[in-house]
Amino acid sequence: MVTLKDIAAAHDRIRPFVHRTPILTNKSLDDLSGATLYFKCENFQKAGSFKIRGATNTVEQLSQTELDRGVATTSSGNHGAALSMAVTRRGGKTKVVMPHNTPKIKVNNVERNGGEVVWCDPDQPSRERILHELVEETGATVVHPYNDERIVAGQGTAAKELLEDHPDLDSIISPVSGGGLLGGTLLATKGLNPEIEVFGAEPSEADDAYRSLEKGEIVANKTIDTICDGLRAQIGTITFPIIQEHVDGIITVTESEIIDAMKMVWERMKIIAEPSSVITLGALLKNKDMFSGKKVGLILSGGNVDLNQLPW
Amino acid sequence: MVTLKDIAAAHDRIRPFVHRTPILTNKSLDDLSGATLYFKCENFQKAGSFKIRGATNTVEQLSQTELDRGVATTSSGNHGAALSMAVTRRGGKTKVVMPHNTPKIKVNNVERNGGEVVWCDPDQPSRERILHELVEETGATVVHPYNDERIVAGQGTAAKELLEDHPDLDSIISPVSGGGLLGGTLLATKGLNPEIEVFGAEPSEADDAYRSLEKGEIVANKTIDTICDGLRAQIGTITFPIIQEHVDGIITVTESEIIDAMKMVWERMKIIAEPSSVITLGALLKNKDMFSGKKVGLILSGGNVDLNQLPW
Repeated sequence: MVTLKDIAAAHDRIRPFVHRTPILTNKSLDDLSGATLYFKCENFQKAGSFKIRGATNTVEQLSQTELDRGVATTSSGNHGAALSMAVTRRGGKTKVVMPHNTPKIKVNNVERNGGEVVWCDPDQPSRERILHELVEETGATVVHPYNDERIVAGQGTAAKELLEDHPDLDSIISPVSGGGLLGGTLLATKGLNPEIEVFGAEPSEADDAYRSLEKGEIVANKTIDTICDGLRAQIGTITFPIIQEHVDGIITVTESEIIDAMKMVWERMKIIAEPSSVITLGALLKNKDMFSGKKVGLILSGGNVDLNQLPW
Repeated sequence: MVTLKDIAAAHDRIRPFVHRTPILTNKSLDDLSGATLYFKCENFQKAGSFKIRGATNTVEQLSQTELDRGVATTSSGNHGAALSMAVTRRGGKTKVVMPHNTPKIKVNNVERNGGEVVWCDPDQPSRERILHELVEETGATVVHPYNDERIVAGQGTAAKELLEDHPDLDSIISPVSGGGLLGGTLLATKGLNPEIEVFGAEPSEADDAYRSLEKGEIVANKTIDTICDGLRAQIGTITFPIIQEHVDGIITVTESEIIDAMKMVWERMKIIAEPSSVITLGALLKNKDMFSGKKVGLILSGGNVDLNQLPW
């Protein structure tokens, strides 16, 4: 099990290679919410999201032999771009398996960071078959986007930084998808101060974490019909037990609540945050009573948005 | 004539009421431009633009009697909102004369800051007639958006802050419309260090400053058909002589160059800046040779954008 010590070690390991992102406040959103909000701005992070934290923590621990054989993943989103960046920096090669209907902006993000795209058909079996063949052929090391303790420890460094600057928070809200970020946030936060409440924010349209918690075991997403393209993954076998043990609740958020929150962040804070990250504000605003008068940290996980496909 | 001393006095006067905005850098835009860029982020300023600087400097100098009679302006843009904010803070009332076809977002910006909208027809004579009647009736003090030495001195504080943090800049680029911001930037910069070059960035579609400089006297805009809604004003009689004396050049920028620059700022810096401010990056990118290897300050003047009316 990942501990606070592992997160501190990850932090030391990745510090030279990632940004310590700013924590922004906004009076107008404080007034609107009735709480005091601290936005941890991972949208300003290298490669545009928190994913570089876990990816760097993992890649830094690969041996030269592993690196020489190459690194691979099937994540076409922020993890694919971040992993490519971390591997390129160490002089290695990354292969990212992607369906051939992947939006061009995601392909560009991977290629700009030195990753190579390997095309597959747009279904899970094809994706896994191509990855499997690639590993068989090259001996590449697969770095999973979340179901890996090194990834969880790396992602926990965002909450660690938030609490170093604001140790007196009452609550933290993190997005939840596969559970890497929420898992790391829980272990960092509860390790530093178990009194601080930690909530996950999840799309109602991809609410496997919420339902898995209710049922007491991992259940599959019924739909992934959400604009939060970073929150469509299935909760992991390594991350679920962490969440089950520590989380104070999962708040599900509808698509229109996510879009409203996104417009508020863009219009009032003047920053670009993706739907998968503003969901934390949506979760808070639909539960104002719960957070009234409290100091709440919100993890804005990323800022990679296709400006030609805005949801309004 | 406004001097550096006036700008320093304005800075002391407004300091408690405005943000000292951050100065951001961006490696990817440095690589692309071949220069080292320092973005003075007035898009994060109170009321969303630098306009609060000049408005506050002016309103702070009004007597209680003037304030009791009320303040008025015809600017429906960022100045109207900023003036409303500055007057409301002192407990006064602001009337902003606006055409009844003004976009709702601008009406909201004024009203949210405590200003009252007075409707007129969408033409200049109606606007001026209504303002004149209002002043006759109430004795309100009119605060012009740029053609006023107190406004120029206030706007100069943005460049003063930029140079306090980065005194070794080679060049500064400021947007130019009525000339308040460029005039203040010139007086602050040349007052602090006459070696630093200062350029204005102006839409090709509203290039009165460029043509006025060429002709040696104020000429009117031929068109104002630009997405830069903050840059459609006519250069002023107070601001033009300042520009004429000090500016190192006006760079005109086409609509498509402005849109390209806007996308770059949004996608790479993850911040919301309005067309009227990203024009400074557009001016630099079309003249890479001129700025190659230099340290260049770019004034991002504001971040008020209608998210439902993006230019792509």
